[in-house]
Amino acid sequence: MTRWLSDDEQRTWRSYLAATQLVEEALDRQLQREARMPHTYYMILVALSEAPERSMRMSELARRAQASQSRLSHAVARLEERGWIERSPCASDRRGNVAVLTEAGFQALAEAAPGHVEEVRRSLFDPLSPEQVRALDEICAAIRAAHEDTGPACS
Amino acid sequence: MTRWLSDDEQRTWRSYLAATQLVEEALDRQLQREARMPHTYYMILVALSEAPERSMRMSELARRAQASQSRLSHAVARLEERGWIERSPCASDRRGNVAVLTEAGFQALAEAAPGHVEEVRRSLFDPLSPEQVRALDEICAAIRAAHEDTGPACS
Repeated sequence: MTRWLSDDEQRTWRSYLAATQLVEEALDRQLQREARMPHTYYMILVALSEAPERSMRMSELARRAQASQSRLSHAVARLEERGWIERSPCASDRRGNVAVLTEAGFQALAEAAPGHVEEVRRSLFDPLSPEQVRALDEICAAIRAAHEDTGPACS
Repeated sequence: MTRWLSDDEQRTWRSYLAATQLVEEALDRQLQREARMPHTYYMILVALSEAPERSMRMSELARRAQASQSRLSHAVARLEERGWIERSPCASDRRGNVAVLTEAGFQALAEAAPGHVEEVRRSLFDPLSPEQVRALDEICAAIRAAHEDTGPACS
């Protein structure tokens, strides 16, 4: 039997969809306006900037940047055109490719970071009390734990 | 001066990104597997099913289904091919178009709903305590209120 949502749950669910969408749109708008890149590109640059030798296998990068393989390939091609990323064959696996953050890419990330962080504060942290931030942290941890138990390849 | 995130905030932020992405991917996977549609299509069908005469102007539909105009146009074209939606000129505005949910579209939605609701429970509600659901509701309300104050056209 279907466990339909109660009115309260329905309201919370729709509010969750709206709020998460508003945050994502605000991040995208700010990054497009001030750094000419969508949030996906920013997450790719961040993941590479934190990797050893600023390089990562494409499959691992897709996982870390929370993008599908096809979406990642498209984004990496655009980032290569800008000279922010280079692709080269993987030394340890001839079928694989690694993406490397270039110095220009690192600079682009460093320039984009202050505006992006300010938008993260404005969009998510500033509206919440310290107790709500703690509650959000626990809520996200619970959701992630549940998905790791049941879903495929979640990190 | 940039208000960089503290270590705790950084962890919460990344956890938020991961958790919201996991929920969205789980919803998409379930709907693709059991109802041959992504979550965006489902939200379009829901919005139309709740509108008077199951019809809505394209601009209003984009807002309600939380999609950009271009993304919505693409989705509506696909839904038209399936016979789930029809488009017709708007009676009160010759430049506008309205989308109408067909009976076949309503049936597709009705068949998809039980599996989708079960996934919403599994992904979001089941992992959380009643207190956490209440906290999430308040957190989402606070985020939405902040975006309504500052952002363009948020509902």
